[in-house]
Amino acid sequence: MGAVREALDSVRLVDHHCHGTVTADLDRGAFESLLTEGEAWPGVSPFDSPVGVAVRRHCAPLLDLPRHAPPVEYLARRSDLGWREVQRRFLRATGTDVFCVDTGYAPDRITTPQDIAEAAGGTSYEVVRLEGVAESVRAAGVEPDAYAQAFHAAALDAVRRPGVVAVKSVAAYRTGFDLDPARPSDAQVTQAARAWLGSGDRLDDPVLVRHLLWTAVDLGLPLQLHTGFGDNDIRLHRADPTHLTDWLHLTAGTVPVLLLHCWPYQRQAGYLAAVFEQVYLDVGLTLHYVGPARAGAVLTEALEITPFRKLLYSSDAYGVPEFHHLGALAFRQGLAELLQKRVDSDELDLPDALRIARWAGRDNALRVYRLRNERPEGD
Amino acid sequence: MGAVREALDSVRLVDHHCHGTVTADLDRGAFESLLTEGEAWPGVSPFDSPVGVAVRRHCAPLLDLPRHAPPVEYLARRSDLGWREVQRRFLRATGTDVFCVDTGYAPDRITTPQDIAEAAGGTSYEVVRLEGVAESVRAAGVEPDAYAQAFHAAALDAVRRPGVVAVKSVAAYRTGFDLDPARPSDAQVTQAARAWLGSGDRLDDPVLVRHLLWTAVDLGLPLQLHTGFGDNDIRLHRADPTHLTDWLHLTAGTVPVLLLHCWPYQRQAGYLAAVFEQVYLDVGLTLHYVGPARAGAVLTEALEITPFRKLLYSSDAYGVPEFHHLGALAFRQGLAELLQKRVDSDELDLPDALRIARWAGRDNALRVYRLRNERPEGD
Amino acid sequence: MGAVREALDSVRLVDHHCHGTVTADLDRGAFESLLTEGEAWPGVSPFDSPVGVAVRRHCAPLLDLPRHAPPVEYLARRSDLGWREVQRRFLRATGTDVFCVDTGYAPDRITTPQDIAEAAGGTSYEVVRLEGVAESVRAAGVEPDAYAQAFHAAALDAVRRPGVVAVKSVAAYRTGFDLDPARPSDAQVTQAARAWLGSGDRLDDPVLVRHLLWTAVDLGLPLQLHTGFGDNDIRLHRADPTHLTDWLHLTAGTVPVLLLHCWPYQRQAGYLAAVFEQVYLDVGLTLHYVGPARAGAVLTEALEITPFRKLLYSSDAYGVPEFHHLGALAFRQGLAELLQKRVDSDELDLPDALRIARWAGRDNALRVYRLRNERPEGD
Repeated sequence: MGAVREALDSVRLVDHHCHGTVTADLDRGAFESLLTEGEAWPGVSPFDSPVGVAVRRHCAPLLDLPRHAPPVEYLARRSDLGWREVQRRFLRATGTDVFCVDTGYAPDRITTPQDIAEAAGGTSYEVVRLEGVAESVRAAGVEPDAYAQAFHAAALDAVRRPGVVAVKSVAAYRTGFDLDPARPSDAQVTQAARAWLGSGDRLDDPVLVRHLLWTAVDLGLPLQLHTGFGDNDIRLHRADPTHLTDWLHLTAGTVPVLLLHCWPYQRQAGYLAAVFEQVYLDVGLTLHYVGPARAGAVLTEALEITPFRKLLYSSDAYGVPEFHHLGALAFRQGLAELLQKRVDSDELDLPDALRIARWAGRDNALRVYRLRNERPEGD
Repeated sequence: MGAVREALDSVRLVDHHCHGTVTADLDRGAFESLLTEGEAWPGVSPFDSPVGVAVRRHCAPLLDLPRHAPPVEYLARRSDLGWREVQRRFLRATGTDVFCVDTGYAPDRITTPQDIAEAAGGTSYEVVRLEGVAESVRAAGVEPDAYAQAFHAAALDAVRRPGVVAVKSVAAYRTGFDLDPARPSDAQVTQAARAWLGSGDRLDDPVLVRHLLWTAVDLGLPLQLHTGFGDNDIRLHRADPTHLTDWLHLTAGTVPVLLLHCWPYQRQAGYLAAVFEQVYLDVGLTLHYVGPARAGAVLTEALEITPFRKLLYSSDAYGVPEFHHLGALAFRQGLAELLQKRVDSDELDLPDALRIARWAGRDNALRVYRLRNERPEGD
Repeated sequence: MGAVREALDSVRLVDHHCHGTVTADLDRGAFESLLTEGEAWPGVSPFDSPVGVAVRRHCAPLLDLPRHAPPVEYLARRSDLGWREVQRRFLRATGTDVFCVDTGYAPDRITTPQDIAEAAGGTSYEVVRLEGVAESVRAAGVEPDAYAQAFHAAALDAVRRPGVVAVKSVAAYRTGFDLDPARPSDAQVTQAARAWLGSGDRLDDPVLVRHLLWTAVDLGLPLQLHTGFGDNDIRLHRADPTHLTDWLHLTAGTVPVLLLHCWPYQRQAGYLAAVFEQVYLDVGLTLHYVGPARAGAVLTEALEITPFRKLLYSSDAYGVPEFHHLGALAFRQGLAELLQKRVDSDELDLPDALRIARWAGRDNALRVYRLRNERPEGD
C-alpha cells in the first residue's frame, strides 16, 4: 500500500452531507429498494449493478462473510446481526469523526443525527432542508402576503437550534437551475404564495424556489445544493450547476455554496469552484453508486482544475449504513489512487499529496463550516 | 488472454440494431464516404481518423493482409475479393447469432435482413423505422383528419409482418428530444398533418414527431431511439436523452425504450437506465468510430451506474461490413478489458463478470425482444 | 522514453493561439492572480491547484530550482532573474517555431507578437479579435445605419495589416452560441446598433454578435472561436460548441472555424470536427490548467472520433510565460502518452503515430493558416 493510501486511511473524515438509516430490520425487497435510486424492478435485482457488486465485495467482510458473498447469504447474515449491530459496524468502519446530517428527507423511519454520532463514535451536526421549512410554514397556516416573513422567521428558528451548521436546497429537483437569478420582489412572492398555499403541491413554484435560494443567502450559513444525479424525479440536464452562474455572480461575497454529487457534471462543478470564490464541491452519492472501481476516475475528473481547498468529502448515504461505509472507502481508495499515481510519476510531491488528502477528507469541511474550534483534531 | 476475454469471445452475440451493407464493389471515394459520419473531404482522407486506423489494423488481416496495411492495398484487395466474399468474411468473424436490422434507412442499395443472416450464418429480425412509415402514408395520399388513423394502421401492418421485433424512431434527428412530452390531441395532429401533408418536407413537425412516439407506445413493441452521435444532420445537444425524462414518466409501464449510441451522453443514458425500469442502452456506432482503443473507456462510462441487465450490444453498422466486425470486436475487447480489470483488482468476482458479459452480449437482448423461445441457445 | 515522445519532442510547434505576457516583474499577488481563471482569494492560494502544482514541478527547474520548489522560493528566483530572462527561458523551452498571437486582450501591459518571436527565436503572426474592432468603431463615432459598413471596413483594414492570419471572436463570452444562426438583415443591424452605440456596454447584443460572426465569414480568413472553459464571465453551458450547428450548416464552404479550448466539451467539439469539413479544434488553455498529469486524458477524449488533420496545438497562454511552457510540455507529453500506448498495444502503427504527432503539433496549423510557403520547415 502506498504512502498516500496509508495517510488517507488514517484521516478522520468529515462527512459533510449524509442522512440517517432505517431503524428496522429489512427484508430483501426493502433492502433492494434502498439499494437503488430507481426502484426494485421484477427480474432486475439491484444487486446486479455496480453498487450491488460493491456491497457484496466491500460490505460482506464486515458482516464476517467472504468477499462477494451471494445476496441471499448477505441478507440472512444482516438479519441475524440486527440493524443496530449492522449500523454500528459500518459506521465505525468509516473512520468518520464528524457527520453533517440532512434531516429533511425521511420517507422511512431513520436514525437521528444523535443516533449516527453514537453508533459511529463521532459528532453530528445538522443541515436544515429549506423546502421542508417552507412546507411546514404552509402546514401551519399563513396568509400569502405574510409568507415571505413567516418563512424567513421559521428558517431562522430552524438554523438557530444548537448543532445546525448549514442549510440545504433541493431546487434541482423542484425546478432545476435554469431560473431567473434575481431576487423576486415582495409582490411576486405574495402572488406566487397565493397560488401555492392553496395547492397541495410540494414547493415547486419557480418564484418561490428562487425566493428560497435568496432566503438561504440571508440566513448567512453555508448552502448545500443538490446537483446532478438523483432519482427519476430529477431532470438531469436542468441540474447542471453551470445554470447557476448568474445567481452565483449576484450572490458573490455572501454564503459558501456547496455543490453536492455533481456527476455527470463534475467537470462543470470544478469549473465553478475554480472561478467563484464561494463555490465548493463533492462527489457524494456518486461514490457508492459507481463504487470503488470507478470512484478514482470520477474524483480525477472532479479535480481536473478544482483548487485543492475546494473539494470536500460526503457520502450522501441514505437508508442503509452500507452506503456510509462504501462512500468513505471509495473516497479514500479513489483519492489515494489518483494522488499516488501523480506522486509515482513525480507530477506531485509527496508532502503536497498528503496535504491535499487531509484537506479534502477533513480540513476543507472544518474550514467551510467553521468547525475548527469546536472539533479539535485528536491526531 | 484473460478468462473474461475468452468467455466473451465465445458468446454468440445478439446485434440488436444494425443495417445492411452496399451490394456493390466500392471504389476509393465510395468506400471512404461510407467510412465517415461526415463526408470525404478534399485532402482529408477518412482513413486518417480513429475508425480508419481501426479498419487498417483489425480488418486488413481478415482480407489476408498484414495489420496496418495501407489504404490503397486494402482497397485493392477488397476489390479483388468482391463485396460478397468481403461481407461473408466480416459477418462470420463477428460471431453474431441474431441481427435486428433497421430496414428504414437505405440511401444506397444494401443487403436485406435475409442477406445478412445468410452471410453470417445467423438469424435476422426486422426493426421498423416509424418515420418511414409516416412518409409512406403521405406518399399514398391521406386527408389530414385521417392521418392519425392511417399512420397507426400502416404501422400496425408493418409490425405484424413476420420477423418484426421492434420499432425505431429518429426523432433525435428531426426535432431533438426537448419536445412537449404529452400525447397530442386529435385536433393538434390533424392541424399539424394539414401543413405537413401539403409540404415536401420529411417528418419534422414537432406535433407529428411526438405523435409518432406515442403511436410507438400504442404498438406495444420495444422502441429503439437514436440518441447522441450521428451525422451533421443532428443537433447533438438536443439528442441528449435526459430531455426524454418527462416523456419517460408519462409512458412508464408501457414499452421498453432502447437508447442507441448515446455518446457523448453515455453517462446520462446510464442514469436513465438506472432510474427508469423501461430504459436500456447501448453504445453502438460509437464502438467502431472510437475503435477498440477507446471502446473500453466508453463502455466503462456507460456502465458507471447502469444495472447490468440494461446494457445491450449493437454495432449500428451501415454500408460496409467492416463496421459489423469492428463493432463486435470493440465490444468484446472493451467489455473484457473493463471486466477483467475489476476481476484482477478483486472488485468483481469472476462468475459475476462472466454473467455480465453474457447478459450484455446476448441475454439482455433476448429478454427485451422476447427472443428467448425463438432462439434457444446452442451452447 | 518512447519513440513517439522523442519524435514529438523534436517537432517545432505551431502555437496557433496565444497571447503576450506581462512586461514587468510580478509580486506574489500579481503572479497568483495571473495563475488562475478565478481570482486570488484570501486563504486559497492559486498555487494549491493543479496548475500551481504543475508550475512548481515543471517550471521551477527552468529557473534552476529543484522540482516542486515552494512558491516563496519560486517567486524569489523569478524576481532575481527578471521578467525578460524568465520569459526567454520559458519561450525557448517550448520549442515553438510559430506563434499566432491574439492581440485583442490586454488588461495588463503585455508583450507584442514581435517580442514573443524574438524571445522565443521564432516567428509571430497576428490574430485580430473582432469584438475589439467593433468597439473601436464605436469609439471613433459612427451613425447606426453606417455601423455595418464601418465595422466591415475597419475589420478589413485590420486583417490587411502584414502578418495577420486569422480573426477571433469571443461570442461565447458575450451571448453564448445559442443564437439565431441567420445573417441579420441591414435593418436589424441598424436597429441593434442604435441601442448599442448609445450605451456604454461591451458588444453583447445578440444581433450584433451574430452580425460579427457573419462579418468574419465575409473577411475570408480562418475564424478562431473561444468555446468552453474560461473565467467566470462565461456561462459554460452556452459555450458548448454544438450550439453552433445550424450556423455551421449555413456557413459551410466558407471559412475554417477553429474551436479553441473546448473543455469540458472536447467530445462535442470532436463530433463537429468529424462531421463538418470546416471545423478544427484544440484543447489550449485546458492543457496548462489540468497540467501534464491530465493533458493526455483530455487529448484522448478530444481525439476519440476527431480526424487526425483536425487537431491543432495551442497554448492559449496569457500573462506569464510559464503557461507557454506548460502548454507545450503538456501537449507533447499528453499526445505522446496516448499515441505510444496505442503503438504499444498495436492499435496504431508507429509511422502513423509519428505522422499524427507532426500533423497535430505543426502541419495542420501550417495548412489551415496557409503558412506552408511562408515558413519552410528547417528540419
